[in-house]
Amino acid sequence: MSSHDIFLGETIGTAVLILLGGGVCAAVTLKRSKAKDAGWLAITFGWGFAVLTAAYLAGGVSGAHLNPAVTIGLAVEGGTKWGDVPLYLGSQLLGAMIGAVLVWATYYGQFQAHLTDPEIIKAQPAEEGLVDQKAAPAAGPVLGVFSTGPEIRNAAQNLITEIIATTVLVLAILTQGLNDGGNGLGTLGALITALVVVGIGLSLGGPTGYAINPVRDLGPRIVHSLLPLPNKGGSDWSYAWIPVVGPLIGGALAAFLFKLF
Amino acid sequence: MSSHDIFLGETIGTAVLILLGGGVCAAVTLKRSKAKDAGWLAITFGWGFAVLTAAYLAGGVSGAHLNPAVTIGLAVEGGTKWGDVPLYLGSQLLGAMIGAVLVWATYYGQFQAHLTDPEIIKAQPAEEGLVDQKAAPAAGPVLGVFSTGPEIRNAAQNLITEIIATTVLVLAILTQGLNDGGNGLGTLGALITALVVVGIGLSLGGPTGYAINPVRDLGPRIVHSLLPLPNKGGSDWSYAWIPVVGPLIGGALAAFLFKLF
Amino acid sequence: MSSHDIFLGETIGTAVLILLGGGVCAAVTLKRSKAKDAGWLAITFGWGFAVLTAAYLAGGVSGAHLNPAVTIGLAVEGGTKWGDVPLYLGSQLLGAMIGAVLVWATYYGQFQAHLTDPEIIKAQPAEEGLVDQKAAPAAGPVLGVFSTGPEIRNAAQNLITEIIATTVLVLAILTQGLNDGGNGLGTLGALITALVVVGIGLSLGGPTGYAINPVRDLGPRIVHSLLPLPNKGGSDWSYAWIPVVGPLIGGALAAFLFKLF
Amino acid sequence: MSSHDIFLGETIGTAVLILLGGGVCAAVTLKRSKAKDAGWLAITFGWGFAVLTAAYLAGGVSGAHLNPAVTIGLAVEGGTKWGDVPLYLGSQLLGAMIGAVLVWATYYGQFQAHLTDPEIIKAQPAEEGLVDQKAAPAAGPVLGVFSTGPEIRNAAQNLITEIIATTVLVLAILTQGLNDGGNGLGTLGALITALVVVGIGLSLGGPTGYAINPVRDLGPRIVHSLLPLPNKGGSDWSYAWIPVVGPLIGGALAAFLFKLF
Repeated sequence: MSSHDIFLGETIGTAVLILLGGGVCAAVTLKRSKAKDAGWLAITFGWGFAVLTAAYLAGGVSGAHLNPAVTIGLAVEGGTKWGDVPLYLGSQLLGAMIGAVLVWATYYGQFQAHLTDPEIIKAQPAEEGLVDQKAAPAAGPVLGVFSTGPEIRNAAQNLITEIIATTVLVLAILTQGLNDGGNGLGTLGALITALVVVGIGLSLGGPTGYAINPVRDLGPRIVHSLLPLPNKGGSDWSYAWIPVVGPLIGGALAAFLFKLF
Repeated sequence: MSSHDIFLGETIGTAVLILLGGGVCAAVTLKRSKAKDAGWLAITFGWGFAVLTAAYLAGGVSGAHLNPAVTIGLAVEGGTKWGDVPLYLGSQLLGAMIGAVLVWATYYGQFQAHLTDPEIIKAQPAEEGLVDQKAAPAAGPVLGVFSTGPEIRNAAQNLITEIIATTVLVLAILTQGLNDGGNGLGTLGALITALVVVGIGLSLGGPTGYAINPVRDLGPRIVHSLLPLPNKGGSDWSYAWIPVVGPLIGGALAAFLFKLF
Repeated sequence: MSSHDIFLGETIGTAVLILLGGGVCAAVTLKRSKAKDAGWLAITFGWGFAVLTAAYLAGGVSGAHLNPAVTIGLAVEGGTKWGDVPLYLGSQLLGAMIGAVLVWATYYGQFQAHLTDPEIIKAQPAEEGLVDQKAAPAAGPVLGVFSTGPEIRNAAQNLITEIIATTVLVLAILTQGLNDGGNGLGTLGALITALVVVGIGLSLGGPTGYAINPVRDLGPRIVHSLLPLPNKGGSDWSYAWIPVVGPLIGGALAAFLFKLF
Repeated sequence: MSSHDIFLGETIGTAVLILLGGGVCAAVTLKRSKAKDAGWLAITFGWGFAVLTAAYLAGGVSGAHLNPAVTIGLAVEGGTKWGDVPLYLGSQLLGAMIGAVLVWATYYGQFQAHLTDPEIIKAQPAEEGLVDQKAAPAAGPVLGVFSTGPEIRNAAQNLITEIIATTVLVLAILTQGLNDGGNGLGTLGALITALVVVGIGLSLGGPTGYAINPVRDLGPRIVHSLLPLPNKGGSDWSYAWIPVVGPLIGGALAAFLFKLF
């Protein structure tokens, strides 16, 4: 696979992943959206079909990792060269940032309406349900459209949740590479992976919102901190390391378990 | 592909697409429907399986474009001859109008019950939530069963939303043509496309109701203006160009991006 | 295909179809069920996966018609011999009755709890929302678990709705026979058909509850009239011809349209 | 298939099955979960995609039985050697227990928050809706995250419900073995089985919560009785034999029906 293909496939693929994934969070969260309050099933199916679309688009180009945890898992397992890893990771982060900007462009009016509503600004901190308000910086009223956050803030617990969820994801993707005789996503493989992601969301997303992908969280968080959104609040940087480190550990753990099989 | 096949496949296929797609809007919106208030997930899955059914029926006949944005995208990309484009577009518009009439036939009693309910007629304008009531003509109480409308009326924003959503759709369809070695929808391809459409609805449908198809909006809007429905209100023609122009731009943009790959 | 295979495949297949399809109606309707009030999406996905399971089980045995409208459509189209039609239809009706009895066995306790609750018995007629109480016999409080009924009672309207919905179904099944080179349901074909049925339910089920299958309605209605359920009310026989005649017309119409293609 | 493969595939596969299946119950039930009250559709799709993930992971290793009812059905039918049955069953029970512990690890904070909320502890017995409070031991406030329980407690009724539901499941799995020419789950077969499980949940899960798998119920119940959860209440051992015996009868019955075909 050429560097050009990796760059193009991972950048565009991850941009589409975050456009659709962040999009469903915007759709369900923001004022004046037709999908407002459509619920957890909408969010989990939305993210699943985001994976489907992105993996389908990038599968034949770059193998559609779209996730540093998958790239690390494949590198540990042997399917991806370590030398290609930095290009994969950089392209994924760039794509995730582009995707987050596209969500903003798509929902521009809704962001404005949401963030200038005095009741939403005021009510947000209490809704967040932080265990210890002093220990945690207040998350902004639309940060959840960009990045994940825990329902109960506890680094060890949140890390364990992300590790377990990512291990399941990467195990499934490694198995699929086995079934398809390569590390690219076949058409049926993209569908299975998408539904596995719906399943992980439904089953393991309750505590932390299932980042299971470092750039899915970090890219949009950087964009949140940069965008000129009114009253957007903080970007909760104190939590940002968990959805990066947890999925990376999970990806590597999955590769070790897979080789044990 | 013969002209006869294009005409028949696109007309019947698009009629089924709009019968089922408009049908789910009627099912969820109208009084005395068993699916009343079934929510956004029902609408997005309903439209997705409408695409599945229509693409499955017409795939082997006309290649199942069913959407001028797809036809334009394929013409730009080279998969469809420019000389065939007018026949594709004309058949699609005719089919969309037939589909909208079939929705009316299927839900005849529900339309009558809904449109003669004094509370529904009266409450509609406020429910629409227009930013500026003076700038926008009042949309009728059942126009949403036929055509799309924005939650926040702003031409530039609404256009951008439709362009982005259609670009994702046509990129996925062009990729599929690549995977199948042709521009017809294979069985698995029809399923993937259908789920991509569910995903676009969940993720990008919040601001404008995701026309992503010029005839899906224009055909039923013409039928709405012609049908003898009681108290139906206006057909909101001032908005009608956006779901036509936006998807056409998106389709062409997707083809340019695809060739760049 | 031997008579033995047709009898076994259609009887067991249709029994499973009605066990799961009637089952989801019981699950969502009856008191003391964990799925009570799970909504229209649950009903439509439940019926779709009922079709999936039944078609998957019977596909290789009898071709999995499971529906007289499909058998008539295939006979008109030429895929099934007219001489086999009576055996198909008889086996389907028998299977549907067995399925309805199995629903009763599965939900025995829930039926008892529901039908001995004084508030449910009393509230039912008003909930039915009949246009003209005098013209229509009162439907019993659990008839909807067995058979379909219209939200607005009008023979012509209800017939048209059932014809349109069944035409879409049988067109899709005939197309699939084309794709698979036979009238049996392949594995992927069973999945597509199941999702088409979810789509028809979401989009066209609002007015009459989408029988789209004569035995799906008639078999359970006969069982409802025979079962020793307390306070079960009438079986609404005056409506019973519509979900029989409408789907048969739709099946034949689909076959004529299909030959026209 | 080697003993090593059976042990590894069934243990890891069943652990993933229960991690995701129990996970969705935790997600929908526990306080401070983002998926709280996501409803019956979320539970049934969550269990279905749990089956998909687990069957996909273990399919190529051990054939992915993941359920003693499937193992018994395949042994009666002839696809699995009786000598391998004890290893299958032991590995499945071990995997189910590991999965239940992983649910606890994933939702540790939520369990603590839920079980120390005085209102939840107090309200639980009344919510359970037991027919006869004296005959049945009070189920603990989070037992439903681990094991199944009936809405109406009646041994004969509950047993019949579990037998019927498991018969449908194992019939579908045996048919699939037929279609794939083996007892392992192919990729498409895993998807079909997963959706059949969603269908069984939607349609037949109302009365007892559809164990349809002895270790799915017994493994987590043992873990519930051992875990140091505060105020967890009883493990309802008087009911525990039904979701073991019912599915085993259903699995054997399905095999006899299948051979009759």
